[in-house]
Amino acid sequence: MSRLDEHAATAEFALLLEVAGTPKPGNVDRHRDHPDLHFEQFLAGAVGAREGLAAATEGPIGSAFETAVAGMSRRAGDNTQFGCLLLLVPLVRAAAVGDLSREGVKEVCEATTVADAAAFYRAFEHVDVAVADPPEGMADLDVRRGADAVATVEARDLSLWDVLARTEDDGNADEWTAGFPRTFREAARIRADDGPVADRGAQAFLRLLAERPDGFVRTTVGDAAAREASERAQACLNGEEDPEQLAEAFVDRGINPGTTADITSAALYVALEQGVSM
Amino acid sequence: MSRLDEHAATAEFALLLEVAGTPKPGNVDRHRDHPDLHFEQFLAGAVGAREGLAAATEGPIGSAFETAVAGMSRRAGDNTQFGCLLLLVPLVRAAAVGDLSREGVKEVCEATTVADAAAFYRAFEHVDVAVADPPEGMADLDVRRGADAVATVEARDLSLWDVLARTEDDGNADEWTAGFPRTFREAARIRADDGPVADRGAQAFLRLLAERPDGFVRTTVGDAAAREASERAQACLNGEEDPEQLAEAFVDRGINPGTTADITSAALYVALEQGVSM
Repeated sequence: MSRLDEHAATAEFALLLEVAGTPKPGNVDRHRDHPDLHFEQFLAGAVGAREGLAAATEGPIGSAFETAVAGMSRRAGDNTQFGCLLLLVPLVRAAAVGDLSREGVKEVCEATTVADAAAFYRAFEHVDVAVADPPEGMADLDVRRGADAVATVEARDLSLWDVLARTEDDGNADEWTAGFPRTFREAARIRADDGPVADRGAQAFLRLLAERPDGFVRTTVGDAAAREASERAQACLNGEEDPEQLAEAFVDRGINPGTTADITSAALYVALEQGVSM
Repeated sequence: MSRLDEHAATAEFALLLEVAGTPKPGNVDRHRDHPDLHFEQFLAGAVGAREGLAAATEGPIGSAFETAVAGMSRRAGDNTQFGCLLLLVPLVRAAAVGDLSREGVKEVCEATTVADAAAFYRAFEHVDVAVADPPEGMADLDVRRGADAVATVEARDLSLWDVLARTEDDGNADEWTAGFPRTFREAARIRADDGPVADRGAQAFLRLLAERPDGFVRTTVGDAAAREASERAQACLNGEEDPEQLAEAFVDRGINPGTTADITSAALYVALEQGVSM
């Protein structure tokens, strides 16, 4: 396998480890399905994303992302890893050009173009993604408009970086435009940890969730549930609550910290690229 | 993705579904690890095998198999899916040439060459595989000799088909040289079944195990254990034994029906190619 394809394979493996890691309260994991979203759909999504992840090693970032999302959606039949892929694509490129560091990935993100932004919007045509309302003055750029927003993106000459920098209060966009601080911090912790790598990912998930309320939970269930999820994740880390029981409770209530899972997959990818023994 | 690459992606997905399916008494599955072989190593092995599976769509079968085994072993750090790949490689080729039928795959297998046999022997250099002693007069062709057996293969002008046809009492070799009868029969049952596809695979595993004692169990634990495993798999199918409890007992005793898992992955692949809704 070429060196470039190895990066795509590693990113696919990070997606598989992310969904396998357990317990990740509220998320599909090795031991839990959601009523209408099964573990095996995440396996399918990871397999389907690989072509786009391979494209991210060389081609334009935006179209690689769109290809990854389209492949994921076609095999999974649903949105399983949209946010994960948004984070993985620039990380894969940074690894491919030999600088998988905070500075390296920031350079990749800053170098994105208007064409990358257009492809990002087109990616929303392939899946239903739950997102928050856009900030004031950004209605024309609402991602839910999909390809219909492309003319606005072009007229306003916005790169993908510009679009994500204008997105407020979104954990993935913040990570993308700040050189992936939480990703690299958790990657270091995953490497320092021991045991199965997937379960180290589950621990990273708890730390990330405790640190910041999950944007996906806020959008789908509300602010109070998002704050509660973070508090209870911290209680798990403190040994005051059983994460297995919390996982059952969150699945029952539809509390699904998806943004936190996205950053977990990114941290697993960085840890794998930096070297982690299984 | 090209049409050919889609077949490789589907084969990789079959490997992931196979290991995810639960309960598969004695095997690593979504709910169980072995003491020294973890679920995540199977995920890694599937990811690593993809390049060789893609090669199987066009190039020589033997070298595609060797590439798949090398990639699996490099990522998994152990032998996770050697037997699965031996079955998947000709099936992928048959799908790629547009005839994924018993006749189609038999043609692929019959067309193998001495070079394919040599590559098959070299594949054993990448992993430790537990195999039975060779039949009388076949000591020079013992697969445990790895690349050392290649000169004998060439001197005796044996194709990969010839080598596998001379292998006695091996479930995978029998499948390979008979047009995959058990694989196609179970694929049809998987398609007719419902529920998550991985768990339909687990049901196929029980049926296959009940039908024929597992060669890997016979080699590693002995005849009596292999017969017991089949009888108890039948008891599970009859509702007389709980497969979850049997799974715990078999893992504890090191009874690991690996050949049966190989055929399960092949049946999942055929079912996916024929069309199965998740």
